Amino acid sequence: MGFEALIDRLLKGDTRAAARLITIAENDIGAAEEIINSIYKHTGKAYILGITGAPGSGKSTLISTLTNIFVKEGKKVGIICVDPTSPLTGGALLGDRIRMKKHFTTDNVFIRSMANRGQLGGLARATEDAIKILDVFGCDIVIIETVGVGQSEVDIFRPAQSVLVLLVPGMGDDIQAIKAGIMEITDIFVVNKMDLPGADRKVSDITQMLELSMSFKYDYENINQDHAIVHKWTPKIVKLNSKTGENFENLLEIINEHKAFLKETGVIENYNRKRIRNETLQILKHKLTKKVEGLIHSNSQIDEYIRLVMDKSMDPYSMANLIIKLLGIE
Amino acid sequence: MGFEALIDRLLKGDTRAAARLITIAENDIGAAEEIINSIYKHTGKAYILGITGAPGSGKSTLISTLTNIFVKEGKKVGIICVDPTSPLTGGALLGDRIRMKKHFTTDNVFIRSMANRGQLGGLARATEDAIKILDVFGCDIVIIETVGVGQSEVDIFRPAQSVLVLLVPGMGDDIQAIKAGIMEITDIFVVNKMDLPGADRKVSDITQMLELSMSFKYDYENINQDHAIVHKWTPKIVKLNSKTGENFENLLEIINEHKAFLKETGVIENYNRKRIRNETLQILKHKLTKKVEGLIHSNSQIDEYIRLVMDKSMDPYSMANLIIKLLGIE
Repeated sequence: MGFEALIDRLLKGDTRAAARLITIAENDIGAAEEIINSIYKHTGKAYILGITGAPGSGKSTLISTLTNIFVKEGKKVGIICVDPTSPLTGGALLGDRIRMKKHFTTDNVFIRSMANRGQLGGLARATEDAIKILDVFGCDIVIIETVGVGQSEVDIFRPAQSVLVLLVPGMGDDIQAIKAGIMEITDIFVVNKMDLPGADRKVSDITQMLELSMSFKYDYENINQDHAIVHKWTPKIVKLNSKTGENFENLLEIINEHKAFLKETGVIENYNRKRIRNETLQILKHKLTKKVEGLIHSNSQIDEYIRLVMDKSMDPYSMANLIIKLLGIE
Repeated sequence: MGFEALIDRLLKGDTRAAARLITIAENDIGAAEEIINSIYKHTGKAYILGITGAPGSGKSTLISTLTNIFVKEGKKVGIICVDPTSPLTGGALLGDRIRMKKHFTTDNVFIRSMANRGQLGGLARATEDAIKILDVFGCDIVIIETVGVGQSEVDIFRPAQSVLVLLVPGMGDDIQAIKAGIMEITDIFVVNKMDLPGADRKVSDITQMLELSMSFKYDYENINQDHAIVHKWTPKIVKLNSKTGENFENLLEIINEHKAFLKETGVIENYNRKRIRNETLQILKHKLTKKVEGLIHSNSQIDEYIRLVMDKSMDPYSMANLIIKLLGIE
C-alpha cells in the first residue's frame, strides 16, 4: 500500500500529514522505508541543531525562546524531543512537550516527542526519519532535544550539524556529566540562568575543561578526493538568560558562525557522508536485530538450545553460532 | 591458540589469570568465545547483585561496606564497575575504582571496571563474560555497579539475580530518574545517608511510587513445563548509613530473603532461561554488528552507494538492503 496521498499533503506543508507520517514511520520500519524512499529526494534543506543538558538546566525554555526568534525571522521550526532513558514508561519529556505546545500558537512550529521503545538502535533510526519528514515538510530548522549523556545521545545527535550543550551556574555535577560523554560532540556551550551567582565561574570552568582536554571536537576533517584537510573549531561558550532572552543575539551569532564554518570549509560534505554511513548502519542494525529477535523468540530449535545451555552441555557463544547458521549467514 | 594455561590458573583462583582473561575477553570476541567455551561448565555458583544509583548517592561506600561484611563471612567478592556513559573518554568510575582498590587489602576482593568502547551491545556482552570468569575464579558474590539510568543498565543488569537501587534524602531528581528506567528491574531500594534530614520522606516517596505504579517487578514468572505460575515480590525498602554501617544487617536480611524467594519459587530457573536468551542475543548482535560495521567501512561498493545517496539517487534504506544482500542474508 502507498502513502502517496499523505506525502502529497506533506509536500504542501500539511501539519497533520507530517504528524501522521512520523507516527507511521516510528511504528513500522517497513512503512518508514516506503516513506523515506518517496521523500528522500526532497530532503537536505533543513538546518539540524542538537540541544542537550542535564534535567533542570532549562532546555525547554531555551528552545522556546530560540524558536520564537526563528519564527519572527519568518522561519519554520521543527522540534523533536528525544527521550532515550525510558524503555518502558515511555517519555519523561512528555510534560515539557505539552508545556511547549501550549506556548506556541503559530503554524510555523511543529513539536514532537519520541521515546525509546526498547528497540535497539530504533530511536536513532526513528529520529533520523522524523528529521527527514520535517525537512520535507518545509522546516528551515529542526531542533533535536535530548536528556542525559551517553552513547544514545551520540547516536541521536549524529544528524545534527551543530550541537549545543546547556549548563547552569552552580550545578557541579553537570560538567562531570559532560566530560563523560557529550563533550566530544559539542560545538557550543551555553551557560543558562546567567543572573544566578556562579555564571562566570561556570564559563571559566568550561574554558579550563576545554584547555585541559586537548582536542575533542576541534578537528573537523574535510576529505576531498584523496586529501584530508583538518579544520579547527574551538567550541564557543555563551552565557544567557532563556527567560528574559538576554544575550540571545550572541547565541544566534555563534550558531550562524558555526553554520558558515561548516559550509566554507567544505566540512559539511564530510558530515553528510558520515551521517549517511551512520544512518545506514542504524537501519541495518535494526533490521538484523529484528530478524534475530524474531528468530530467538519463535524458532522451536531455540528452546532446545537453551535447555542444552542450562545443562552446561553448550555455552551461549556456541548457541549464537548455531543461530547464525539458521539465519543463513556465512 | 589456546588459553589453557591461564584457565588452569583461573580454576585455582589465580587473581592475575582472572584479570588477564577478562581483558582478553573484553578486547576480542573471538578469544571470549574460546574462553567461555572452556569455562562455561564451571559457572553457576556465584550470586550476582546489581547496584545502581545517581552520581553522589554513595555507591562506592555502600559497596565497600557490603564487601567488608561479605569478606568477614569468609566469602570471595568480585566487583565489576560498568560505565555505559562514556564511549570515548572511557570511564568516569575509574576514580572510584582506584579509591576502592586502596580500601581493600585482602585477596578475597577482585575489582574491575569496564567502560563502553562504543561497540553496540558490547558492554553487556563483555560484562556477562567477566561475571562468568569471576564465577569460575571462585567468587561467591559478584557485584555489578553501574551509573545512570536507561536501556543500557537494563541490559547490563540482566544477569543480576537481585537489583539494588541507591537513593539519598533530598535529591528530588533521583526518584524521577528511577521512574524513567530502573524501577522496572529493582528488587531492593536503599536510602543511603539515613542521618540526613528527609530520609523518612524519601522512604515514603518510594512507597508511594510503588503503590502508584501498579506492577513492575512484582510479578515473577516460573514457567514449569506448560504451566506459568506467577510469584509476587514487592520491592523492599531499607534505610541505612554506608559510612557507619548502621542498618546493614537489615540490608543483608533482605538480600537473603530475595535470594531465598528466587530459589524457593523456582523463579531462578526462569531467570536463567531469560539470561541465556538475552546473552545469546547480545552475542548475536555483537557478531552481526561487527560484520556489518566491517563491511560498511571496508567494502569498496559502500563508497559508491554513499555517493548515490548523497546525490539523492538512492535513499539509506535502499542502501541498507543492498548491504544485506552483500551479507548473503535472505
